[in-house]
Amino acid sequence: MQTLLATASRLQQLHCAACHAPHSAFSLQRVSSCCAQPLVADYDLSAPLTRAAGIQATENSMWRYAALLPLLDEANRVSLGEGWTPMLALPRLAARYGFLDLRLKDEGQNPTGSFKARGLSMAISKAKELGVTGCIIPTAGNAGVAMAAYCARAGLRAVVVMPRHTPQAFREECYWYGAEVHLVDGLINDCAARVRELNAAGELLDVSTLKEPYRLEGKKTMGYELAEQLGWRLPDVLLYPAGGGTGLIGIWKALREMQALGWLPATAQLPRMVAVQAANCCPLVETREGRQVNCQAYMGKPTIANGLAVPRPLGEPLMLDVLDESDGLALAITDEQMLEGLRELGKEEGLFVAPEGAAVWMAARHLLRTGWIRPEEQVLLLNTGSAQKYLENIVGLA
Amino acid sequence: MQTLLATASRLQQLHCAACHAPHSAFSLQRVSSCCAQPLVADYDLSAPLTRAAGIQATENSMWRYAALLPLLDEANRVSLGEGWTPMLALPRLAARYGFLDLRLKDEGQNPTGSFKARGLSMAISKAKELGVTGCIIPTAGNAGVAMAAYCARAGLRAVVVMPRHTPQAFREECYWYGAEVHLVDGLINDCAARVRELNAAGELLDVSTLKEPYRLEGKKTMGYELAEQLGWRLPDVLLYPAGGGTGLIGIWKALREMQALGWLPATAQLPRMVAVQAANCCPLVETREGRQVNCQAYMGKPTIANGLAVPRPLGEPLMLDVLDESDGLALAITDEQMLEGLRELGKEEGLFVAPEGAAVWMAARHLLRTGWIRPEEQVLLLNTGSAQKYLENIVGLA
Ligand SMILES: Cc1ncc(COP(=O)(O)O)c(C=O)c1O
Ligand SMILES: Cc1ncc(COP(=O)(O)O)c(C=O)c1O
Ligand SMILES: [Zn+2]
Ligand SMILES: [Zn+2]
Repeated sequence: MQTLLATASRLQQLHCAACHAPHSAFSLQRVSSCCAQPLVADYDLSAPLTRAAGIQATENSMWRYAALLPLLDEANRVSLGEGWTPMLALPRLAARYGFLDLRLKDEGQNPTGSFKARGLSMAISKAKELGVTGCIIPTAGNAGVAMAAYCARAGLRAVVVMPRHTPQAFREECYWYGAEVHLVDGLINDCAARVRELNAAGELLDVSTLKEPYRLEGKKTMGYELAEQLGWRLPDVLLYPAGGGTGLIGIWKALREMQALGWLPATAQLPRMVAVQAANCCPLVETREGRQVNCQAYMGKPTIANGLAVPRPLGEPLMLDVLDESDGLALAITDEQMLEGLRELGKEEGLFVAPEGAAVWMAARHLLRTGWIRPEEQVLLLNTGSAQKYLENIVGLA
Repeated sequence: MQTLLATASRLQQLHCAACHAPHSAFSLQRVSSCCAQPLVADYDLSAPLTRAAGIQATENSMWRYAALLPLLDEANRVSLGEGWTPMLALPRLAARYGFLDLRLKDEGQNPTGSFKARGLSMAISKAKELGVTGCIIPTAGNAGVAMAAYCARAGLRAVVVMPRHTPQAFREECYWYGAEVHLVDGLINDCAARVRELNAAGELLDVSTLKEPYRLEGKKTMGYELAEQLGWRLPDVLLYPAGGGTGLIGIWKALREMQALGWLPATAQLPRMVAVQAANCCPLVETREGRQVNCQAYMGKPTIANGLAVPRPLGEPLMLDVLDESDGLALAITDEQMLEGLRELGKEEGLFVAPEGAAVWMAARHLLRTGWIRPEEQVLLLNTGSAQKYLENIVGLA
């Protein structure tokens, strides 16, 4: 519990991701009123701010970057200690497969066991700041648990809608936080439809991925952290499990902000970003390889990586932009491969990662084999969660 | 991944907890050869070492205190990012019950989901440094999972022996780390007997609580952290769930070391330490209240707080010393009370704590009601783990 410096937020405005029209950042917003597309937060990055002044080094959470976050009054911060997660070397797997420098950022050590804590800490803090009294979310699991936890901590009502086949551990934890849980046959898009019904009167804030502007701001802190933890030198390749896309988009946004701030050289080589998806649900791969115009009619199937079962992500265009700008790639991994990756990360490195994280490792292996990753490149895997709540999906398979 | 300063360990020797005879800290040790009692590590605390020089502030793990830890060569560090866990305020519960300043240190955010990660990271690092090739442990669950993870990370063989009634999540995770798991009818003392059989030839290092000197050194980092996080002012009361006792003993050891170093004033008021146990297994309470001479014939029963089911802790005398020196207390909490605490911490503060952590909260409530804790005192709860792996014990009870 450090005494906090008054590092005031540099939040300026929001803009529509589609038409770039400006919108107020000082009233409650959902999607843009112009295009019904995601709203993105802009900061004043031109007034000088050194890393030393802009980072609160004694704060062991994502809130060390409060100046670049949208919360205006620290009294509204709803925190469980999210972020500032470990950056680990994977020496045994690197040696076995021939990576010179292989690392993993472990988001499984967040409150509620996944990186979703970052986005929901931020969204619920802003909801509190803007006078919201309750929130609702369609979720593949982790985001719902995180929303339930932060709503409890803030004293807000919480309604969580998840697929019926989600492992029981996810809904059980929601109950302990006092949330109302609804189960739906289908995937997260079916849950979204149910959210619209349940919240027809609009008394709850819908914190669906990219349907409010602030989860993205929480997620982007992964980008700030990885740069700081790597001594302000970026990896050559960054692999991320992409479902709704906030992680991928958020990290990229952070890298751009750090360039604008001068925290990274404007000429810094940014990492090639790899969006890792599940073979059972890989809309991005399908679009990027030209087998569909976009994801709007894509049909996905369940996968043991529940968080990747997002057939029609609203953020598809933004994700594709990141892959294009970074010279990146979208890649699909099967459930069987994920299990192999889970075993390897467990037995070789002592990490019990979510299937989403295992997918990322298997993608790195694949891309090294095909030559897309060169052995001497620095490779960073983002493990987004712990395997703990997925036990039902994987029990007996060790 | 920060570049590390060469903050050399100040380790000097070990001493026998019973007779204080010195033993070498530079060869492989188990219990003391003189008295078969725990060995305790001593450091050179007289040579000047400021907090600024002694703490590696950029390291976001317990290894920030490497100078006061026993590992000699950093190359032997076996780490998954353990420690430097959040210190959270509990404003809603404080207001409801009338505490002026109530906080919780959340050890559930450690690798493998409990504070056991600290002790096992240290013990396995030292095992590696001393040339050990495999380890064995009797465990109530969390310590076994942690040992399995760190052995995997170090490339050591791991054998884990736990009670058959331990929730399946504990053994399942051990399998993913490649450990060999044995199930025993009974409690942890029965597992210890099985360990002796399995390891009759002595080829594995037995890392049972206090049967090797270094788990304690890992645990003590909780003491360093809480002092640093509270700005070098200690809480008035510190509540800890005591089973084998390393947490309680380790924190106390850290406070004494910080006094010797001058990091805390020699005259600093140390916290009153409360050892919280389960009503089903509370040997310390029984001894301290005079109903038995010591725990050596105590019979415990299982409890949903698996980690508290330690009927005959080797460290009983050391724990009793801490309670005496600190003007503390031992207190038993029933399983029903733990469930009530779990619900409250979940619904009011968004924390999904292990039953051991819930017990600690209920103990604080009780002691405030009886007047032993005064409303204006600063109270610190140690939550030692996440509820995740205990789901089987509590499912349907939210
Ligand atoms: C563990 C995990 N990884 C990755 C994702 C994908 O998240 P996003 O693409 O929205 O960042 C999710 C979403 O549920 C998840 O739970
Ligand atoms: C969650 C938890 N809390 C507390 C304890 C008690 O540990 P100790 O008294 O050895 O510090 C244990 C031991 O298994 C545990 O797993
Ligand atoms: Zn627009
Ligand atoms: Zn002795």
